[in-house]
Order: sequence, then structure tokens, then C-alpha cells
Amino acid sequence: MTPIDLNADLGEGFGRWRLTDDEQLLSVVTSANVACGFHAGDAATMRRVCELAAERGVRIGAQVSYRDLAGFGRRAMDVPPDELAAEVAYQIGALEVFARAAGTRVSYVKPHGALYNRVVHDEEQAGAVVDGVLLADAGLPVLGLPSSCFLKLAEQAGLATVTEAFADRAYTEEGTLVPRTRDGAVITDADTVVDRSVGLARFGTVTSHSGERIPVRARSLCLHGDTPGAVELARRVRTRLESSGVRVEAFV
Amino acid sequence: MTPIDLNADLGEGFGRWRLTDDEQLLSVVTSANVACGFHAGDAATMRRVCELAAERGVRIGAQVSYRDLAGFGRRAMDVPPDELAAEVAYQIGALEVFARAAGTRVSYVKPHGALYNRVVHDEEQAGAVVDGVLLADAGLPVLGLPSSCFLKLAEQAGLATVTEAFADRAYTEEGTLVPRTRDGAVITDADTVVDRSVGLARFGTVTSHSGERIPVRARSLCLHGDTPGAVELARRVRTRLESSGVRVEAFV
Amino acid sequence: MTPIDLNADLGEGFGRWRLTDDEQLLSVVTSANVACGFHAGDAATMRRVCELAAERGVRIGAQVSYRDLAGFGRRAMDVPPDELAAEVAYQIGALEVFARAAGTRVSYVKPHGALYNRVVHDEEQAGAVVDGVLLADAGLPVLGLPSSCFLKLAEQAGLATVTEAFADRAYTEEGTLVPRTRDGAVITDADTVVDRSVGLARFGTVTSHSGERIPVRARSLCLHGDTPGAVELARRVRTRLESSGVRVEAFV
Amino acid sequence: MTPIDLNADLGEGFGRWRLTDDEQLLSVVTSANVACGFHAGDAATMRRVCELAAERGVRIGAQVSYRDLAGFGRRAMDVPPDELAAEVAYQIGALEVFARAAGTRVSYVKPHGALYNRVVHDEEQAGAVVDGVLLADAGLPVLGLPSSCFLKLAEQAGLATVTEAFADRAYTEEGTLVPRTRDGAVITDADTVVDRSVGLARFGTVTSHSGERIPVRARSLCLHGDTPGAVELARRVRTRLESSGVRVEAFV
Repeated sequence: MTPIDLNADLGEGFGRWRLTDDEQLLSVVTSANVACGFHAGDAATMRRVCELAAERGVRIGAQVSYRDLAGFGRRAMDVPPDELAAEVAYQIGALEVFARAAGTRVSYVKPHGALYNRVVHDEEQAGAVVDGVLLADAGLPVLGLPSSCFLKLAEQAGLATVTEAFADRAYTEEGTLVPRTRDGAVITDADTVVDRSVGLARFGTVTSHSGERIPVRARSLCLHGDTPGAVELARRVRTRLESSGVRVEAFV
Repeated sequence: MTPIDLNADLGEGFGRWRLTDDEQLLSVVTSANVACGFHAGDAATMRRVCELAAERGVRIGAQVSYRDLAGFGRRAMDVPPDELAAEVAYQIGALEVFARAAGTRVSYVKPHGALYNRVVHDEEQAGAVVDGVLLADAGLPVLGLPSSCFLKLAEQAGLATVTEAFADRAYTEEGTLVPRTRDGAVITDADTVVDRSVGLARFGTVTSHSGERIPVRARSLCLHGDTPGAVELARRVRTRLESSGVRVEAFV
Repeated sequence: MTPIDLNADLGEGFGRWRLTDDEQLLSVVTSANVACGFHAGDAATMRRVCELAAERGVRIGAQVSYRDLAGFGRRAMDVPPDELAAEVAYQIGALEVFARAAGTRVSYVKPHGALYNRVVHDEEQAGAVVDGVLLADAGLPVLGLPSSCFLKLAEQAGLATVTEAFADRAYTEEGTLVPRTRDGAVITDADTVVDRSVGLARFGTVTSHSGERIPVRARSLCLHGDTPGAVELARRVRTRLESSGVRVEAFV
Repeated sequence: MTPIDLNADLGEGFGRWRLTDDEQLLSVVTSANVACGFHAGDAATMRRVCELAAERGVRIGAQVSYRDLAGFGRRAMDVPPDELAAEVAYQIGALEVFARAAGTRVSYVKPHGALYNRVVHDEEQAGAVVDGVLLADAGLPVLGLPSSCFLKLAEQAGLATVTEAFADRAYTEEGTLVPRTRDGAVITDADTVVDRSVGLARFGTVTSHSGERIPVRARSLCLHGDTPGAVELARRVRTRLESSGVRVEAFV
């Protein structure tokens, strides 16, 4: 059985504000998507999270975003591709400094929020993010949705690609995420989330919105850390995966 | 005779705004202090300036600043040392990505504006900037004023230090800069600036505010690029230095 | 004959950066679209522009924008309507302080850049801008394109609406602007721009892209101030309008 | 006996981030210092807080700050006076829109964080804040420390001034606050804080750091809302004040 990676967004505070319990999450996940200052993540926080991640052997990924602190990177923006590519590279470079200072390296790149959603289907922006990664380091894998435009273009450009799935999101029969605007898009029952995690990791399947068992191939599961009870749920997912015989392990 | 380096601030626009004629300046200077996004310098501009500098063999330096776009980094800020160190490292890392993508490296660090002035005498902030450079890359030289607290602490920390002088600024008898708030602090006559450049580069001396010839040791001269006629003056300085037998050459 | 208003964007610098020659423009236009800090326009600049405008009897309008300094408000953003409405109101309120301090008032509202283009057809965002104006002051007229979604919704909401035209933009036969991405979208020949201004002001007509004379009703002409020669062209437009018997006069 | 006002900082989130429990605090205080976007406080939050405050009859004050989201306005900045005055006015104007939309008005101004501390002794910045208030509305009272430079200059300029005290801060024998950097500067024992509140409100006295009873005249007590248990403590203070016969009432 392929091992499964657990990734989560970390360091998503800014200055005085905190959002995630970074310390707790770092005892659960194997990959940390670290905010790089554009939607969240001041420099001191980035440094601290990198140090903690390095100590615990958690991989550090650059969670790149639109430049949008006020909107937490959740508002899609029509950024011209050359600007977007440069902004992606800028964020990776900034994080790399703290990863190196902590004795490790940035190991992958994952777009955040509205940029994540946009590059699923927008060729221009997906290409710009790929260009940004290439600018920064052509050896960096990228993390995204299996059938996304982003992973397809990344692959064509010679980047390593890693697929992820969401145990707490509903899937259509085609294996895409049910949009958040629709009822039942987010699964809140903890037991169901834990069960789906195991199904995704062991069998590469999940039950779709309409009740069918569908294949969803993913090397990584995305856990959320910004809601009450999130850390506890993440811990349960990991425990159940391990007790089910799944090896929890970073993809790099 | 020691060669002299010519440095200037570049890439100090932001988005729609431009400040310096980067292309022209890059045909004159040997070291480019590139703005890193905190007082100026969007990512696309950083990339372009790095490409141009690399093409012309001009060294790239990280011009690190307080986070202050509205004040162009000219307003001193009481930033706690750990935050300041992290912000300095962040900026260096971001620029490094574009320097590398252009086939070169960040070669030195120079603080900008109010931070430049503050670290002349403020031990805490000077130490924080040194810490930031060490975080990013302990092999990076720093550029500053000869008798500054910053260069002293950098040297103690094992960083290479490079001194600079200003041909267009008045000096006290003690060899420090006459504060800008005092009359005659800035020398605007072009011929005088050219003559002083030669004196600084050939003999390591300059005429002080009170008329005495004083020693000012500097491996680099700082030229300005953000006023009308600045590029033309910079060009004249370089031409006169070369015709006076001074070798114009970067310090790294 | 109805008088014609001349409006232009002003105060579009930020901190150290300047873009438009505000003083010169204020001697030509009758309405000043003042940047309110979201795409450009620091507080000190807003104050100064309001003082100059008030001295010369030029009307002050709030040029509201997406929050996007790095992109100069030219990147469309999916801002949720309640946030957008609040941000529009915020900008109007901030400008109102300086207009009042200068002895006058904010007299109208005009969206900027990508927001201007978006509210031509996006009902949700157009409605949000209308809500923002209503929040700030239901007595404020709004300035926009004749057949835009924005003006239609503003009218339904009881706001006064003012139409504007562009003498330097090509029009389709339907009376809409030819998108900037198409050839010939922007008219650069100064004489043509001057002639079109007179046609628009005197007869409410303009020659379309395909050569037909079409009606374009506009109470205001938008002049540009951010390109070389822009002020000179603006002055020529005004002079020719006046010598053609057109009364140049603000709409409020 | 003079009534006492209870003020607290509110709306100090930004976008995705929250800091204070605005709803709970608004059921305790009589004056709400609303963040205006420079250190915290996005437009939508400002609107919501103004609506809640208006509903409950709580006065709205503009909590003006340095432009410093990353530092939460806690880093002193050398802002030139004309810029600072304009920035203060800008913030007041922006908040006024939401106060009016909620059926009320901005009733006073209180500087935040590093600016609050700076104007205690810095004449230039204190004068600039006063100028900013005058620009916005010469009828607005200002809230500050009894012997501060700020209140003195405000009074000279004809502004109404309101003094405040802190039940959870240690006082020197001279009646000034013990700097936060010294041991015992902040009083964390809830019972002590409640007792000191009553002493300040009923008798205008407090026990100094060295044990002496000293006079501290204040029309308002500042309560904190950003620490765990803060709201509960605020509620206890109010309850005890009322049961001690003190009338809790806004100063305007």
C-alpha cells in the first residue's frame, strides 16, 4: 500500500493575529503548507513555523497566494501572468530563507485559497503559477487536485506533481469537489471524516454526493486547522489511519 | 590604487509607479541596490532588474527596508529585533530567487532609508539587521558607513563589510555626514560632485563642511538615481573616475 | 446646448510616487476624480488635491477602487458584495474629510479601473457599489457608462446618474467601448481626439469603429492625465470646446 | 459623584482574523474605540461594530493609529507631522461614514498603541494628531492620559479633552503609568483590578506602585478585551461600579 501524506495550512496568522494552532498541528501532519506573507504569514511567524517543522521532521511547503491580506487570499484576482509568476517566485524565495535557516529546504509548493481554486480550470493562471515555480526552483513538486489544469501544466513543464484529496469535502460522481456554495459540500461529522480518510488512503475511493463509490487517487490528504476541534479531528484521522495499517509519510 | 565600486538604488517603483531609470543606471553602476518589496519593488520589477543587472555584469544587492510602502521606508520604526531580523531575511530570500533565475546571486546587503540611518547608531536594530543577514546567508557582505554601529557589529559577527561614501553629501570634520536638515548638507553642483568623487576614489579624502581635507575610506561610492539629471551626473562621475586612472569595479 | 463636464483622475500617486500633474490638470477639468487610498492616493495627497480643487472651483469626486495598490486597481477581484459595499463607503468617507476641510464636499462617485469595467456588466458588484454609495450618502450622483449595469442599478436605487464618454476610445456601432485588447481601441492622434470631443459635446455623436456616426449621450468627457502630453491634450480639448461654443461646466 | 465612562478597543480584527469579542464587550462598555483600518479594522468590520454600538447606545470613537497592520500599530514611527495629521483625519472620516449609516456619529478620538504612547511626550506628533482631529471635526473630544502632551495641546487648540485611567496598570507616585517593561506594570489579579476600578471611579485615587494613595482624575476607565477572561473581568468591573453607587455613563 502507498503511504499517505497529511498536509495542513500553517502559520496563517499575521502580526498580532493568530489563526491556527501551529504547534499542535505540527505533531499531526507530515507536510506543512506555510503561508508566505501574501494572504497571511509575517516573517517572524514564517521563521518560527519553519523551526518547529524542521525539529519534528515535517516537510515545509510554500503556500503561495494572491497578494490579498484583507481578503485572506480568498478573492479571485485577474493578475496578469507575468506578475503572478513573479509573485509566486517571490513567496517561495522568502520562505526558502527560513527553511534553510532551520536546516532544511522548501520541499513543495501549494497554491492557497482563491488561487488554488482558480488554477483548477484557468489555464493562464495555472501556467503562471507553474512559471513561478520554475523561476524559483524547477526541482520543486507541486501539490493540487488530480484533474486540475494546474497539475497537468506542471507535469508538461517537467515538475513533479502530487495529488491530494479532502476527507471533509463532498465529491461529485466525476471525482471533482462539490462547490462550497452547495448544500452538503462540507462534511462536518467527525466520524464520517475519519472513515473517509481511511477509505481514501487504503482503497483510493470515496462515496460521492450521490452515493456511489468512486476512485480518487491521492498521495496526500488535506486536513484543516482553522476551526474549533480541527486539531483534535486531525489527530483522530492520523490515529485511525495508522491503526488501519496505513503508513503516514510525507511525499518527499 | 584600490578600485572603486559605484552603487545606486534601483527598482524603486511599485506596480504602476516608476522612480528610477533602471536601464540607464545599469549602464553606469557596478552594484545595484535592488528594492525588495518593503519600501518599493514589486516582484515583476525585481525580476526585470535582476535580469538586466545580470546581463550587464552588475552585482545585485538586497536593499532591505522597514515595511513601509506609504513612507518609502523613510520613517524610522521601532521594530522589535526578532521581527526586524526576520523581515530582513525575508527580503533577501525573495530577491535571491530572481538573482538566481537570472543566473547570478545576491552579492551583498544594504539597508535603505530610515533603516540605513538608524543602524548607524542604534545597536539593537543594527544587531537585528546583522542577524537577518546571518539568517539568510552568512557569506553576504554588508554595505554601510565606515564608522557605523552596523558595520562594527557585522564585523564582530564575521560578516564581510564594505564601506561607502557619498560625493554629493557634506561631511563633518569627524568624517560623518552632515544631517540633511542642515544647510549645505546636500551638494547639488555637478562639477563639485564629480571632483569629490575623484578625490574620494583616488586619495580617500574629501573637503569637510568647514573646509578641511579629511580622510574618508570607502570601497564604494553611492550615486543617486531618483532626481532629474541624476543619470547624467552618474555617467559623468564614472567617466571622470576612469579618465583619472581609477578602476571602477564591484567589490565582490 | 447642454454644457459638458470634463473629468480626470487625480492624486494617483502614493507616498514617494507621483503619477499625474495634478496642478496642471486642475486648471483644465471641471471635475476631479480623486484617488482614495485603495489603488493610489495617500492621505496627504488627498488633502492637497482637495485644497487645490476647492481653490479653483473644481468638483471633487471619490474615485473608488478595489483594494489593490500593487495592481493600481486594474486587476478585477471577486470581492463579496458586503465587503465591497463597505470598502466603497470607507473610501468616500475618508475623502469627504478632506473635501470638507477644504470648504467643499464630495460631489460624486466614480469607480476606478477594473472595478469601473466590472460594474458595466456584473450585477452583483454593480449593486455593491451602489450600496456603498447609499451607505455613505444617498445624495451623491454616480458617474459611469451610459448603458452600464452600474448606472441602471444606481437609478433604480434612487441615485442621480451622470453619463460619460471617452474622446480617445473607439466605440462599437452599439455605442459601447471597443475593448482595449483590440487594435485601434485607443485613439492616440491628438487632432482626432479634439475633434471627437467637440462632436460628443455638441451633437452627442461619435464615429464608430466601423465608420458610422452613432449617438453617445454624455454629460461628461473623461480626459486622461497619466501619459506624456496628456495635460497639453486636455488643454487643447477644453480650448476647442469653448471656441466651438460649448459651455464647459461641472454637472453638479 | 461624577459618572464614569468605560471604554474598550473594538473591531480589532482584519479580514479573516478576529481579536476581540465585540458583541460581548458592547454589552459592557459605554464607549467603543473602533479600529479604523490602519492597525486593524477592515471596512466590513467597522460597519458591523458601528451598527451594534448604535443599537446598544454605546458611543463610537475613532481609534486612530499609525499605518502598520504588520505591527498592529505597536511600533512607534517617525511620521512627518503633515502626513500624520492627514492620516488621522482620513481614519476619522472613514469611520464617520459607518457611524452615520448606523444613525449616530463619531463622538471622540483616541490614539492607539504606539501612537498613544508617543503623544504622551512627543510634542510634534501630539500636535499632528490634534491637527488631524481639527481637520476632521473641531467639535470632537479627544481621550488620553491626564498629564499628556496630547491633551495639553488639544486643550490649547480648543478641543474638548477627556481623561482616562487604567485599573489594570500600576501607577508611579507621580501618577504616570509604570512602563510595561518593568515588573508589576500590569495587574493581572481580577479582584485587585475590580477594587482599583471602584477607587478610581469613586474617589479619584489609586494605590501607587510604592504603596501610596495618589490622586488620578479620570472621566473614563479603559478596559481590555483582547485577553482570555477579559470580557468577564470587564463585566465584573461594571457590576461592582454600579453596586458601589457609581453611575456608568459615556462622557458625551
